[in-house]
Amino acid sequence: MTLSSEAPTVWLTPEEMDAARERLPILYVDAIPVRLDPAGELTSVGLLLRVTGAGEIVRSLVSGRVLYGERVRAALLRHIEKDLGPLALPRVPPSPQPFTVAEYFPTPGVTPFHDPRQHAVSLAYVVPVEGDCGPQQDALELNWFSPAEARDLGLQAAMGNGQGTLLQQGLAHLGH
Amino acid sequence: MTLSSEAPTVWLTPEEMDAARERLPILYVDAIPVRLDPAGELTSVGLLLRVTGAGEIVRSLVSGRVLYGERVRAALLRHIEKDLGPLALPRVPPSPQPFTVAEYFPTPGVTPFHDPRQHAVSLAYVVPVEGDCGPQQDALELNWFSPAEARDLGLQAAMGNGQGTLLQQGLAHLGH
Amino acid sequence: MTLSSEAPTVWLTPEEMDAARERLPILYVDAIPVRLDPAGELTSVGLLLRVTGAGEIVRSLVSGRVLYGERVRAALLRHIEKDLGPLALPRVPPSPQPFTVAEYFPTPGVTPFHDPRQHAVSLAYVVPVEGDCGPQQDALELNWFSPAEARDLGLQAAMGNGQGTLLQQGLAHLGH
Amino acid sequence: MTLSSEAPTVWLTPEEMDAARERLPILYVDAIPVRLDPAGELTSVGLLLRVTGAGEIVRSLVSGRVLYGERVRAALLRHIEKDLGPLALPRVPPSPQPFTVAEYFPTPGVTPFHDPRQHAVSLAYVVPVEGDCGPQQDALELNWFSPAEARDLGLQAAMGNGQGTLLQQGLAHLGH
Repeated sequence: MTLSSEAPTVWLTPEEMDAARERLPILYVDAIPVRLDPAGELTSVGLLLRVTGAGEIVRSLVSGRVLYGERVRAALLRHIEKDLGPLALPRVPPSPQPFTVAEYFPTPGVTPFHDPRQHAVSLAYVVPVEGDCGPQQDALELNWFSPAEARDLGLQAAMGNGQGTLLQQGLAHLGH
Repeated sequence: MTLSSEAPTVWLTPEEMDAARERLPILYVDAIPVRLDPAGELTSVGLLLRVTGAGEIVRSLVSGRVLYGERVRAALLRHIEKDLGPLALPRVPPSPQPFTVAEYFPTPGVTPFHDPRQHAVSLAYVVPVEGDCGPQQDALELNWFSPAEARDLGLQAAMGNGQGTLLQQGLAHLGH
Repeated sequence: MTLSSEAPTVWLTPEEMDAARERLPILYVDAIPVRLDPAGELTSVGLLLRVTGAGEIVRSLVSGRVLYGERVRAALLRHIEKDLGPLALPRVPPSPQPFTVAEYFPTPGVTPFHDPRQHAVSLAYVVPVEGDCGPQQDALELNWFSPAEARDLGLQAAMGNGQGTLLQQGLAHLGH
Repeated sequence: MTLSSEAPTVWLTPEEMDAARERLPILYVDAIPVRLDPAGELTSVGLLLRVTGAGEIVRSLVSGRVLYGERVRAALLRHIEKDLGPLALPRVPPSPQPFTVAEYFPTPGVTPFHDPRQHAVSLAYVVPVEGDCGPQQDALELNWFSPAEARDLGLQAAMGNGQGTLLQQGLAHLGH
């Protein structure tokens, strides 16, 4: 088994992954894609519009699992490419320190974050993107919001799994 | 299955855990136990002396796995109690933001961190302790080092799995 | 001139300070006093109730200037004692890294922070307090709010100088 | 007096600045210029070679004062342009949180940082640069060092004012 940033996208069969999800916290990354002005100041935040398995339409961040043998920054790049396309030109931050760690529990209310499928622990980063971004396979739309729009409580309520709180935490980290 | 901070210490049989270790990154916490003066300034750093499975004697930080259904801060408390005893009076930091994320790979050289058993991703925190600390079951000694001693390269080389780098990163985070 | 943590409270005459305030950014610290549970989880946030020079009643954080020759952590301790009393038992964080830097400008709207008297740049920290706290000289009250109450927009609007934003940023840093 | 990011470079006469330096902590920024690979991993660190007023040759970071009415990020951009030239294409980080705060005291030994002229408090940031960089007016050279070279103790000892410690702290923040 090779260890490289070109890790295959799947290491486990769906059944094995289901078993693991009932036994271990699963490591995730969450990325908040942002556009910056030349002074590094936030100008807009990108959010995906998706249909959930339950048929609900929700806003979401870029998010996904870290694979066996994969660096955290490789996982960030892989999920950004999967969700925003191959031309997004992400600037993954040089420090491994996330701005927060989001603990998603299968039971709602333990933390602000909730994932009915699993106990996931996610390292959250703000990732500036400088290229062309578009919604990929499983997303309906990608929309850009000003900092003021992104702080809007209605928008935050439209985000699934408590990610509205994570968005708010990212905006706070950026000085908003 | 209940989700609580009193999570049982073992959710998986050793065979199941071995299988998981070959398939998924395993979530860990690392804690650097420290003593502070009344102004919050670092006075000393606690390091354990252990015998590894291979019979080597190494210095180590407080370290261990996060269990299914367990909060990160509960895992920190559990491992500090396991390694420093029940009277350590740890002050787990109020923010979930770790000072760094250490990626331990089974292959040496991918990062400064190495774990021959598994791909572990560890959230690293500095944890002040205010009570009585002593080495527990599997440790030979617990020793306290001044910041200057802790920066010593010989001491850092005596630490296993690249944790000398993690100690140095923690000291840097504290202004040293 | 000695350089020590017992720096005199005033190095400049009021006239000299006024002149400096028109010429240089003035270095401040802001502290959010918090109570934690034994696992380090936020239980409440302390806010002062003050009358401003203009006769307005506002909520405020612990805040004040860093003096010439004074360490940042000494300034935090001095202002916490000044505002919460000598028995507050603050736990100043061991790392010098603030959770954010608040730039208060005399002109409103440049940043979320505003100070009509000066351009102040403030290092903001969350400071757990474990002892008895009470309002001192120039404060009417000290009140403790649950995390949910502290996120309330009405409370935040009642804070002066944009400190509602700073409180929100501190709560976000703590995972709320 | 206008408040803008185009703040004049000098607001005080040299005599007035000297007087202020004896009375108030002066707000600075320190920037560690870095080159990153496409995954955001550090590839090299840029250090200036300068002659000090005392005729010593030292290595230094990009460093300078924050002016009255100037945003911290505008000060970073101004000093990077002054030291690395107008084509450096700096990517000032989107978060105002510095990786550390360096307290430079006129008396050596209070902290690892020392500035014989003043008590300066500096917000330290890692700043990726993507363009052409060259030494400007008062620098002899600009040299790029690999992470391993930058951790070398000899190089760190060649840095003035304790900035070797600050460089080490920046490298630690980046996972080295």
